[in-house]
Amino acid sequence: MKITIAEFAEIANERLPFASLMGLQLDHIGTDHVLMRAVYRDEFLRPGGTIAGPVMMGLADAAMYALVLSRIGPVELAVTTSLNINFLRKPAPGDVLARAAGLKFGKRLVIGEISLYSESNPDGLVAHATATYSIPPSSTPDS
Amino acid sequence: MKITIAEFAEIANERLPFASLMGLQLDHIGTDHVLMRAVYRDEFLRPGGTIAGPVMMGLADAAMYALVLSRIGPVELAVTTSLNINFLRKPAPGDVLARAAGLKFGKRLVIGEISLYSESNPDGLVAHATATYSIPPSSTPDS
Amino acid sequence: MKITIAEFAEIANERLPFASLMGLQLDHIGTDHVLMRAVYRDEFLRPGGTIAGPVMMGLADAAMYALVLSRIGPVELAVTTSLNINFLRKPAPGDVLARAAGLKFGKRLVIGEISLYSESNPDGLVAHATATYSIPPSSTPDS
Amino acid sequence: MKITIAEFAEIANERLPFASLMGLQLDHIGTDHVLMRAVYRDEFLRPGGTIAGPVMMGLADAAMYALVLSRIGPVELAVTTSLNINFLRKPAPGDVLARAAGLKFGKRLVIGEISLYSESNPDGLVAHATATYSIPPSSTPDS
Repeated sequence: MKITIAEFAEIANERLPFASLMGLQLDHIGTDHVLMRAVYRDEFLRPGGTIAGPVMMGLADAAMYALVLSRIGPVELAVTTSLNINFLRKPAPGDVLARAAGLKFGKRLVIGEISLYSESNPDGLVAHATATYSIPPSSTPDS
Repeated sequence: MKITIAEFAEIANERLPFASLMGLQLDHIGTDHVLMRAVYRDEFLRPGGTIAGPVMMGLADAAMYALVLSRIGPVELAVTTSLNINFLRKPAPGDVLARAAGLKFGKRLVIGEISLYSESNPDGLVAHATATYSIPPSSTPDS
Repeated sequence: MKITIAEFAEIANERLPFASLMGLQLDHIGTDHVLMRAVYRDEFLRPGGTIAGPVMMGLADAAMYALVLSRIGPVELAVTTSLNINFLRKPAPGDVLARAAGLKFGKRLVIGEISLYSESNPDGLVAHATATYSIPPSSTPDS
Repeated sequence: MKITIAEFAEIANERLPFASLMGLQLDHIGTDHVLMRAVYRDEFLRPGGTIAGPVMMGLADAAMYALVLSRIGPVELAVTTSLNINFLRKPAPGDVLARAAGLKFGKRLVIGEISLYSESNPDGLVAHATATYSIPPSSTPDS
């Protein structure tokens, strides 16, 4: 594994203010999967009293970023090329958890799947996403 | 049109704190298209010095929400069911603009297309998204 | 379960000529998952000698259709509203297999995930899709 | 432009049997957009008497392939990496038309948008897709 939780937290704190704004916290990092959490704050809510979609999208994207860095190290120029998300259940207020796992680690593209859970909805996914990251030419991930 | 810029701003300010956090501002609302802006702040940046993907996703989703409300009025329970985004060019620091337009206004689903521009990249889209909103049974949009 | 393999085969044979054209065959149907197979024929190939993307998309869509019918019975007007697919590895000539499972069975929408394998690529997925089906008002699936 | 209609037809006829099976026909090819047609046959129908989704997906993918080849020439190993489609209106029997246009022509990825029309539904899109093609390293498109 090419990056630790502490190293990712440092990147997030210093270079990814959006992650701090959203209260993102890495619970586990490994080359096969990553667990990340959006620690609840009232700003997450949308009309209807449930968690807003952009919180889930930001969390999914950041979890995927951590998964990519676990393979290639702190290569900051790895960027998302596409993301698709299906919202399944409206999460009640509470932490949102993401589990990102790889579907393919290619030389140029990493494709992964992100399952989103809510501590307030224990009975199933609240959202499901897939995302593709583009890897700079010199930073091919371990396959 | 069933909602004004001022009415949308009131919903966003009071009920959608995420939009305020992201500096979202509605420039135009109409039943055929909406223009929304994320007013630049340094927190938008990601490693590499360009605008983070979640800012663009949040903006796309909010622009689409405004388009839906332009048809059905302030029905807060209209929710995103899916969103797909392709990131095309890395936006340099600056405001990001979204233009949302409908592809279909159905009884139960509204599907739209959102084109994202950057004031710093005048030569093309920085991202392109499509999104689907689910409409509560009693709030069918004007077609 | 509201439909059997034989009943689905009858619908496919009589009403879904595309499925016959593609040699689709249902290996297993259940309310939690479906296994479907595209029996290899040379017409599946694309330049480069691997299986064409449309074969995989057609298989994914049909597997999802069978999953939906397993819940609501032979309701022919259930239709796909969206499908997203990531192509992961180029499948060498051989049968392609799809496993469709539900992410959400709602009153109006069924969302599922389809994993595609190839008998010629035993070491991983060749593609991964998510799809949404719209259910006619009177045919709510068992949840 | 690096490929003609006749050259594309030859590739399709000889190397892409799926395209022939689906009656695909290129009406226009240019580096900025492509028009392709699926000439109606009864095999296109699905239960309910409308055109099956896989026909539209195959047409969208092939139109995008032609757009890519218009830029890089007959490079057969250009492959789809992802495709997202929204089905908007059920097309009645009749030819289906696709217009593919580029959103980004990068060195490694080409991203495009495909609008699908039906000769039987003159009043709007029947489907809308976006797709990403991966370009082999030696075949960078003209930008």
